[in-house]
Amino acid sequence: MSEPQAAARAAYFVSDSTGITAETLGNALLANFPGIRFLRHTIPFVDTAEGARNVVSDIDRAADAGLAPLVFTTVKQPVLRRILSEASAVLIDLLGGHLTEVEQALGTTASEQMGQYHGVGDMTRYLERMRAVEFAIEHDDGQSSRALDQADVIIIAPSRCGKTPTTMYLALQYGLLVANYPLTDDDFPAEGLPRPVAKYRERCFGLTSTPLRLSQVRTERRPASRYASLEQCTRELRRAEDLYRRNHVPFLNSSTKSVEEMSAVIMQTLQLRA
Amino acid sequence: MSEPQAAARAAYFVSDSTGITAETLGNALLANFPGIRFLRHTIPFVDTAEGARNVVSDIDRAADAGLAPLVFTTVKQPVLRRILSEASAVLIDLLGGHLTEVEQALGTTASEQMGQYHGVGDMTRYLERMRAVEFAIEHDDGQSSRALDQADVIIIAPSRCGKTPTTMYLALQYGLLVANYPLTDDDFPAEGLPRPVAKYRERCFGLTSTPLRLSQVRTERRPASRYASLEQCTRELRRAEDLYRRNHVPFLNSSTKSVEEMSAVIMQTLQLRA
Repeated sequence: MSEPQAAARAAYFVSDSTGITAETLGNALLANFPGIRFLRHTIPFVDTAEGARNVVSDIDRAADAGLAPLVFTTVKQPVLRRILSEASAVLIDLLGGHLTEVEQALGTTASEQMGQYHGVGDMTRYLERMRAVEFAIEHDDGQSSRALDQADVIIIAPSRCGKTPTTMYLALQYGLLVANYPLTDDDFPAEGLPRPVAKYRERCFGLTSTPLRLSQVRTERRPASRYASLEQCTRELRRAEDLYRRNHVPFLNSSTKSVEEMSAVIMQTLQLRA
Repeated sequence: MSEPQAAARAAYFVSDSTGITAETLGNALLANFPGIRFLRHTIPFVDTAEGARNVVSDIDRAADAGLAPLVFTTVKQPVLRRILSEASAVLIDLLGGHLTEVEQALGTTASEQMGQYHGVGDMTRYLERMRAVEFAIEHDDGQSSRALDQADVIIIAPSRCGKTPTTMYLALQYGLLVANYPLTDDDFPAEGLPRPVAKYRERCFGLTSTPLRLSQVRTERRPASRYASLEQCTRELRRAEDLYRRNHVPFLNSSTKSVEEMSAVIMQTLQLRA
């Protein structure tokens, strides 16, 4: 029999709202311990004493079964934080201490209402996001050139280099109007950018990849096809990169980057950040 | 002459990676001070001494022009944090202190490599997200019923209640397969759910809104139309809610919720959280 695997350590993200902030920072911290397996639980909307006590019961059960769980919390109400602190766990308060630092810096105390960052906010932002997502859907994969002059960014790349998820991320998170346009064999040989996007060169951003990675990703879609062959991928990527260079279109290699990283690079390069 | 408005306080989010974690937590903290105007700057990819010194120069210029800026940082390298701490600003280290807490809890030190949470991670997750976004685009607004049996969630609602952005958020952030289906006058009067989604009732989730809010949102799209009239909105929402109740479809009112909050409620209700 093989050695039993080390038990996973329980990690809780406990929030009085969506849990997004607790998850984001908690995971950023846990990423520093790649050698340890974590069993993650997100518990959103813990905003009553009863809710907090239920969480404590869950955590205590997990504690009985193994090592003390880690609990990352962004719960704001002191009375709820006190209840959570009674759990048999290591409580890491992601907001509390920093809130005091910010209060001192600003010379004022946090408002009683306690704003909610992931709350609906104003209708303007809501409409902006909705419009951006719809623009992205309409302009996915070169489907439409209607109102293309309104695009903040046009992402161009060969098939499967990450255009669509990056487009959607920029739209959803930042309300940017993003179109994307595929480079296919029909676009080569050519000196210039494909006609529909050529006049918006300064808003274009190219994606590339490595032939091996692209071939792997394409194989998921069409196994053993010419489309997924290393040869075809190599040629398409070389041509795309030549095209970007010739036309002074900035580009990045998506093979080692997440959607979030690509989005951050694109915004920085095209100076789209507020 | 009117009183000059209070100057905005500069707030920097400084990161050695995308800046997402710094922005998320920094904004969550600032949301507690709704009375103060902040001028926000995100500076990603600060991963060299030179980069850090440039940031310090920027911050010092802002400091000269007004009150000491707030600097929220997730930069991990101690040498870079030391450089940043020389800025004329209040430095709030969002990771450092918590990292020590986590190290103590785990009885180990953070790995030298320092994992990157928003890095590309494994290819499986990348493909999952890509597939989810494409599924969402294909199934937006009831456009396709292909492979609908694979959907984790089917969001149903009258036009402009927030189906599309919520769908996209669930796909992009959580890799869930999400379809959405519009409820129109053609679906009424009817006892049951629209035919294409009826057999997946237990995966359906309904959205509703308030007549006034829906009318405002629709007015953005088609001003002074019957579609945007308060009367039409009132009728559609009442019918939709009746339909949800009759068919035991869980639903929420989107008028006071952000896309993030709706997504969190949907995942919790349908138990889609890992």
